[in-house]
Amino acid sequence: MATPVVAASGSWEQIGAKKREALMSSIPQEWRIPAGLLPPVTQDDVTDWPDTSGWFTPDELAITSLTASELVAKLASGEFKSEDVAKAFCKRAAAAHQLTNCLSETCFDRAIATARARDEHLARTGKLVGPLHGLPISLKDNFNLKGLDATVGFSSHVGDAAKSDSALAELLESAGAVFYVKTNVPTAMMIAETVNNVFGRTLNPKHRQTTSGGSSGGESALIAMRGSPLGVGSDIGGSLRIPAACTGLFTLRPSAGRFPVRHTRSGMPGQEAVQSVNGPMARSLTDIEFYSKSVVDERPWLRDPRCVPLPWQPVELPTKLKIAVMWHDGMVQPTPPVIRALRVTVDKLRDAGHEIVEWDPVDQKEGVVLLGRMFVADGGTAIRKELERTGEPFRPEMLAYETATELGTYDMWRLQSERTEFQNRYLDRWNSAGIDAILCPTIPFNTVKSGSFKHGKLSGWRQGTVTVAVLTLDKVAYTGVFNVLDYSSLSFATGLTVDKNIDTLDSAYEALGDVCKAVNEEYDADMMDGLPISLQLVARRLEEEKVLAMGKLVLEALSSNT
Amino acid sequence: MATPVVAASGSWEQIGAKKREALMSSIPQEWRIPAGLLPPVTQDDVTDWPDTSGWFTPDELAITSLTASELVAKLASGEFKSEDVAKAFCKRAAAAHQLTNCLSETCFDRAIATARARDEHLARTGKLVGPLHGLPISLKDNFNLKGLDATVGFSSHVGDAAKSDSALAELLESAGAVFYVKTNVPTAMMIAETVNNVFGRTLNPKHRQTTSGGSSGGESALIAMRGSPLGVGSDIGGSLRIPAACTGLFTLRPSAGRFPVRHTRSGMPGQEAVQSVNGPMARSLTDIEFYSKSVVDERPWLRDPRCVPLPWQPVELPTKLKIAVMWHDGMVQPTPPVIRALRVTVDKLRDAGHEIVEWDPVDQKEGVVLLGRMFVADGGTAIRKELERTGEPFRPEMLAYETATELGTYDMWRLQSERTEFQNRYLDRWNSAGIDAILCPTIPFNTVKSGSFKHGKLSGWRQGTVTVAVLTLDKVAYTGVFNVLDYSSLSFATGLTVDKNIDTLDSAYEALGDVCKAVNEEYDADMMDGLPISLQLVARRLEEEKVLAMGKLVLEALSSNT
Repeated sequence: MATPVVAASGSWEQIGAKKREALMSSIPQEWRIPAGLLPPVTQDDVTDWPDTSGWFTPDELAITSLTASELVAKLASGEFKSEDVAKAFCKRAAAAHQLTNCLSETCFDRAIATARARDEHLARTGKLVGPLHGLPISLKDNFNLKGLDATVGFSSHVGDAAKSDSALAELLESAGAVFYVKTNVPTAMMIAETVNNVFGRTLNPKHRQTTSGGSSGGESALIAMRGSPLGVGSDIGGSLRIPAACTGLFTLRPSAGRFPVRHTRSGMPGQEAVQSVNGPMARSLTDIEFYSKSVVDERPWLRDPRCVPLPWQPVELPTKLKIAVMWHDGMVQPTPPVIRALRVTVDKLRDAGHEIVEWDPVDQKEGVVLLGRMFVADGGTAIRKELERTGEPFRPEMLAYETATELGTYDMWRLQSERTEFQNRYLDRWNSAGIDAILCPTIPFNTVKSGSFKHGKLSGWRQGTVTVAVLTLDKVAYTGVFNVLDYSSLSFATGLTVDKNIDTLDSAYEALGDVCKAVNEEYDADMMDGLPISLQLVARRLEEEKVLAMGKLVLEALSSNT
Repeated sequence: MATPVVAASGSWEQIGAKKREALMSSIPQEWRIPAGLLPPVTQDDVTDWPDTSGWFTPDELAITSLTASELVAKLASGEFKSEDVAKAFCKRAAAAHQLTNCLSETCFDRAIATARARDEHLARTGKLVGPLHGLPISLKDNFNLKGLDATVGFSSHVGDAAKSDSALAELLESAGAVFYVKTNVPTAMMIAETVNNVFGRTLNPKHRQTTSGGSSGGESALIAMRGSPLGVGSDIGGSLRIPAACTGLFTLRPSAGRFPVRHTRSGMPGQEAVQSVNGPMARSLTDIEFYSKSVVDERPWLRDPRCVPLPWQPVELPTKLKIAVMWHDGMVQPTPPVIRALRVTVDKLRDAGHEIVEWDPVDQKEGVVLLGRMFVADGGTAIRKELERTGEPFRPEMLAYETATELGTYDMWRLQSERTEFQNRYLDRWNSAGIDAILCPTIPFNTVKSGSFKHGKLSGWRQGTVTVAVLTLDKVAYTGVFNVLDYSSLSFATGLTVDKNIDTLDSAYEALGDVCKAVNEEYDADMMDGLPISLQLVARRLEEEKVLAMGKLVLEALSSNT
């Protein structure tokens, strides 16, 4: 019971069809939802289906309702068997896939074998394998697991099964984790929704007409369905934070070097002007912190030379934080529910005694344009070559890659110098403001109708002797600038949800530009009603401990009744 | 009394001549060596000249004979005035320049003003400005100091005075340091000797027919002359370790992110596939450690976003170290004195109870070829454009840059992927050997006659659709591989010196290749007789504390009489 490796022969359409079939065939009959129980395709919110369908046993529901931290406690005490936990999550993940198309690979056999070994180890030695003993962890498609593909949405990678596990997977498994599924991504992981020509589109289980975000949108859909207690995604422009925000989850985008990236599949291998990082996604901030500490405590720098030997350190926060709020990024005004969530959070933080200052978005546009230029610096060649191997077309969301002009190394060096100068200036502003964090939207909306999170227009950018096509990336601007800066950032669920009666467009609203206008015109209060609203909290580079500690204070303030 | 800024007009030869004249004019009459006292040009060793010439006062000699750690102690106790210390080093640096051509800029006025402020601060407050209170520190030419050029050997940069200090200079000065000179480098800092078309060639004061190494060879000559107690150089392929080895000094090449690089002049701006780092050079390992701890304690990550927030931590070594010795790198067999120094060190380490294993040089060639490919990835464009601004020709040592073909970004990304795979494999080998350090030559000789440390032959390298000219770099292979790996590395003086009577070519010597043959044929025992022999000690990435602690154990073993 693992996704069988299928050879990549035939047209890209045939390859995709075979791969999808192989994925479905890896779900055993007992975990396929009987046709009579399937919710109608027109049912938007399917998150309650496991609880209400009667298809899950009370034990399965009890297990899968818990957070990762709760699960490890019960696994450690022996109250839960690892095998039972693994099977419950395998079944629920299978269900999630059938409802949202969130998986890319399964390895249920491996899960059950690992889980049994955990149980035997505990029974024999009385000791846990490690801090993650018996915890099922789902992985984004780009993490190599031996014997499974890591297509990252390219038909050309179908049938090219990984020969070994990624460094992070090795570390997590040695700390006790149990792997059972990998999750869907957009092509090359370079689209802000989750859609590709192999597996198709992943839906947001909280409203299946909306997107679960991208690129870690298979993870967000799976976790929102409670088909995983904790998953690992990756982020080069917002790919952890955007899907977390779209589904009301928590995530940490760490700075590069904190968690190992070795032997993961990249959409643009060798690109490192802005570094891809990975991090946890879960339903609680406690889980995010628990995972982060567990990984760093395992000394990942001994497994991946790109990791920094920086131990996980307790942080002492000042009692009064100085938080800069960025209401908008100067390009796209957030939709009404996001503005309200920001206002509420700011008010509650002030009430809790913290200092709030304003953050001028003056640098945001330059940052996101830099990001775009770095993404397309190879003229889209890396992506084009993968597509050409099977004749797969560029998806329409990837027009910027399709039309970009390659830079020579000299111009690439100049671009890197520009990026460094940007990083320098931003740090100076941060220091002279004396702030602890920036609070701002993660995305300019809570989520959007699938297909609406398209990239903005292309604009020409002259560098050296060539004109480079650049995606303006307006909609990932809130996250992407912090990738350019390599700052540690959270996306957190505020606990607030959209209320169509109060979250209406302010009559005083004035568009900041075309994308701003489109985003706010497309805001559909009826569709969004009841969906969670998230925000972003940002600290400096390699301040993961601090941003998590501050996140806890923000949640405390938000949950207070003052 | 600071080098006057001269406009860059006229031919590159005229620009250079004016700049040299300006530099000399910045040395006040009282610090110009009277013609009658100047040692003859034919005098090889000039290091004793300050002691024997009678031109220095006993106080000046007492001050300049001390190490940095000794000086700060006497400055802190008030035994020495900062102003006296500054003046003594200004004078001795001026002398060093007149004997070895080691300086590029002076700022004697700034030095004396800063020193007086230090003295006044101590007198007024009873407190030190910081851990470097009153310590003169010399800086390599690439560190920006306000109002001074940072030509890095290009005539095109003459007259382009820095508008502010580099981040490191700001940090050091706020910790108490006193700046007084900057030191000469080769063009673009990309030659292993110190020679350029603006300032000409720096000589090794221990034997003026030999090179003081490069690219931090102005520093090494100055420090070897005791014209500086401690200097800061930089290293992208060996530029700290090679000059330290050529002159019998100590240095630490830290991993990237430990010391700030912001606002330093690069020879190839924006190149970061292999990162340039900076570090201290001094006459004792104690000074190297003192400086390193002092810099990190100042939290450089708040000044330079490329720095890692990794505090300086005491390290506990195992009583028995496991050290891998690499006798040669598979390309160039070291000359007889270096082989003897390695043998003696290995024997003494064994006697001291440490475990010695052999390190197969199997990966060295690939590493150094990667380095060369990264250096010339822009087809030499960055360097060519600087030269073209004044019509300055490529120096013959830079043929590789002159003839290279530029890579596109796609091929550059592939090269970066190759480098990452190389880093992965090397770390795996290191871990599975379970070693603490690698002990090996810093360079394949102690030093060489000036002009003999030329780069090796060019060889073609096919990447993508283009053939790239690559310098084989054989002679910097011992250092450069550790730049590719970003490992923390020391070059240390063994305390041994060349003995022409015993350091003769072994009759069993067999050349490993053409460069090996040339190096060993050019070995001139008579010329090298009495000169210091250095070795290299390497630890993993960001293990600066550990490599320094191990270095101390190696020195202890070497100084034992067993």
